[in-house]
Amino acid sequence: MWAELQEIGRHPDTRGYRRYAWTGADADCRTWFQEQAEARGLTYETDRNGNQWAWLGDPAQGDAVVTGSHLDSVPDGGAFDGPLGVVSAFAALDELRRRGAEFTRPLALTNFGDEEGARFGLACVGSRLTAGQLTKDKAYELRDADGITLPAAMEAAGYDPAAIGPDPERLARIGAFVELHVEQGRALDLSGDAVGIASAIWPHGRWRYDFHGEANHAGTTRLVDRRDPMLTYAETVLAARREAELAGAVATFGKISVEPNGVNAIPSLVRGWLDSRAADQATLDTVTAGIEAAARDHAQRHGVDLTVVRESFTPVIEFEHALRDELNKILGGAVPVLGTGAGHDAGILSGSIPTAMLFVRNPTGVSHSPAEFAAEDDCVAGVLALADVLEGLACR
Amino acid sequence: MWAELQEIGRHPDTRGYRRYAWTGADADCRTWFQEQAEARGLTYETDRNGNQWAWLGDPAQGDAVVTGSHLDSVPDGGAFDGPLGVVSAFAALDELRRRGAEFTRPLALTNFGDEEGARFGLACVGSRLTAGQLTKDKAYELRDADGITLPAAMEAAGYDPAAIGPDPERLARIGAFVELHVEQGRALDLSGDAVGIASAIWPHGRWRYDFHGEANHAGTTRLVDRRDPMLTYAETVLAARREAELAGAVATFGKISVEPNGVNAIPSLVRGWLDSRAADQATLDTVTAGIEAAARDHAQRHGVDLTVVRESFTPVIEFEHALRDELNKILGGAVPVLGTGAGHDAGILSGSIPTAMLFVRNPTGVSHSPAEFAAEDDCVAGVLALADVLEGLACR
Repeated sequence: MWAELQEIGRHPDTRGYRRYAWTGADADCRTWFQEQAEARGLTYETDRNGNQWAWLGDPAQGDAVVTGSHLDSVPDGGAFDGPLGVVSAFAALDELRRRGAEFTRPLALTNFGDEEGARFGLACVGSRLTAGQLTKDKAYELRDADGITLPAAMEAAGYDPAAIGPDPERLARIGAFVELHVEQGRALDLSGDAVGIASAIWPHGRWRYDFHGEANHAGTTRLVDRRDPMLTYAETVLAARREAELAGAVATFGKISVEPNGVNAIPSLVRGWLDSRAADQATLDTVTAGIEAAARDHAQRHGVDLTVVRESFTPVIEFEHALRDELNKILGGAVPVLGTGAGHDAGILSGSIPTAMLFVRNPTGVSHSPAEFAAEDDCVAGVLALADVLEGLACR
Repeated sequence: MWAELQEIGRHPDTRGYRRYAWTGADADCRTWFQEQAEARGLTYETDRNGNQWAWLGDPAQGDAVVTGSHLDSVPDGGAFDGPLGVVSAFAALDELRRRGAEFTRPLALTNFGDEEGARFGLACVGSRLTAGQLTKDKAYELRDADGITLPAAMEAAGYDPAAIGPDPERLARIGAFVELHVEQGRALDLSGDAVGIASAIWPHGRWRYDFHGEANHAGTTRLVDRRDPMLTYAETVLAARREAELAGAVATFGKISVEPNGVNAIPSLVRGWLDSRAADQATLDTVTAGIEAAARDHAQRHGVDLTVVRESFTPVIEFEHALRDELNKILGGAVPVLGTGAGHDAGILSGSIPTAMLFVRNPTGVSHSPAEFAAEDDCVAGVLALADVLEGLACR
């Protein structure tokens, strides 16, 4: 099952995955999902937002237990982020059938569309639309780097973009959603556990820093006559690291755009994007305020104009305590409970339905990279833990 | 004359010029040059490398006096860098005819092709080819951002790329080349002079810094687990400023390229280009060694791999002292003599023939930008000084 998925959308040079929403690689992943569902006699369907569902039992019965994740990837992503949760869902069902488990609640396996947002710049589009956290109008405005709109891309992939929108009836039939995911840090590696349970998703946001200076000749302009925004950018990058270190948070400048971006030209504009996350809102506020203050101070002293725009923000998401405690009980009570800095479909859906997450150990912590890794033993432990959870929830 | 040239290749939004070699805007500038030459009864020709010439008198007589500059521009460049030298050449000839000057040496006005290198990445292609400082083979390898080669671009513009190469016979006929150029710094503004004479072009070079780190998730990777090359880049940008300040030189990081350049991804690669120049070789060596040492120190401490490649280098160019002193004598002996950090066709040709430069005051020092400026009075002073020089040299 894993092997069939392994070569889809994999770049021959980087060995990283490029499975972007509504592309050919995405379609191949979707075909794989449908084949897996049908091979197990599950009822396959796609919802109005293009998310895939495979049902065991009658959805109309309500109070369903749902598990799954996503199959799309970031640019040159790893093999585990997303697919591990979908493959483990099928494998856990196989395990439960081996155990002869009898289901008292309907079960569904899912693949949520466009989780990474690699193509249109917004993460979790499939679950956001379903949960009513993204309007149809806003979704229609999304464009990829080639100017193709989301509805045009959906249509080209054979889906009806006119149908997209909130899906409260579907959510009302779900009693619990559990997403298994490879950990994207090293907490489980440090604690020595194969599997963990999520407590919360850290509040996080993205800020765009526009440093406006003055374009000039790099060879002839005296240093004292310069208004070089690259210097202010560099000071701000270092301030972000300093503030995050002090607060035990994370802050990253990973994306930059420069004008005119010429070797012999002092830039007129350096645009840098800050991604910052912390365990709680107060800490995040302290970090981002500290970074902005440092940037403004340097900008003022060097004649650079600075504008800061918050492009997105997600407050802290606490997963439902009752479901979390139930998972912990099912798994024997000794499973570590940990927060995470990454966003997930489970985080989006937690606003509408009881939601929980299981994490599988990542020995290097590396994610969003071809080097992303989980050991086979840990993946098996993840499948067994997910099977235990589904059995405990759906076979009572 | 100036007005006709003013709108060619000007971008309607930025008001900056985009006159790249062998494009439509470049062709319009060339047509303008030919019309100006023919309107004055000069003999028009292009040489094997596409440089334009307008002759008064018989070139075969030898010991010609030549003046001119270039008409192409950097991206969103200003109106003066290049065109001021060509327009002033025609205007100086008009002035000499008004004075009734009688020429004893042949005079030529020129427009050298592709001085800025904005399209193919190498500056002074026209003069380099003529002087034999760029081989035909190397020139054939030059490509623009769309993958179009230099010979293909020349051919599309109606020139024969098979003919390009060194032109020693042409250079042998030239006794002196004088290029008038807008100053690209504020030395004349600070000294209170409208016109100056060049002493030398500072040694300068370009270095590519490749900072290799590890791509990872910006939200979940602990700071201590990161190998973030953006931090080392930022430290290096600030080190460059520090080292240049200490040495009285200039150093600039104006161009950057990042992979994967995602908001939520720690970069795997940050590639930054350093441009550095100083009054003498020893100072430049001190500056660039200091920058590289700081970069290597930080890279080592943060697990970042660094490679530094010198992409181009031009040693100090001293303009011929005899010609320089002659210009100073012609202009009354009170003209400031100043060095410059910018490269010019005159710098390239100085390896083959006696060469000198005149600078016109730039009150802001801004260059390579739509804000580049020279006052009308100063431009007139430049034309009169150039007329005096041509009269002194060619009408003895």
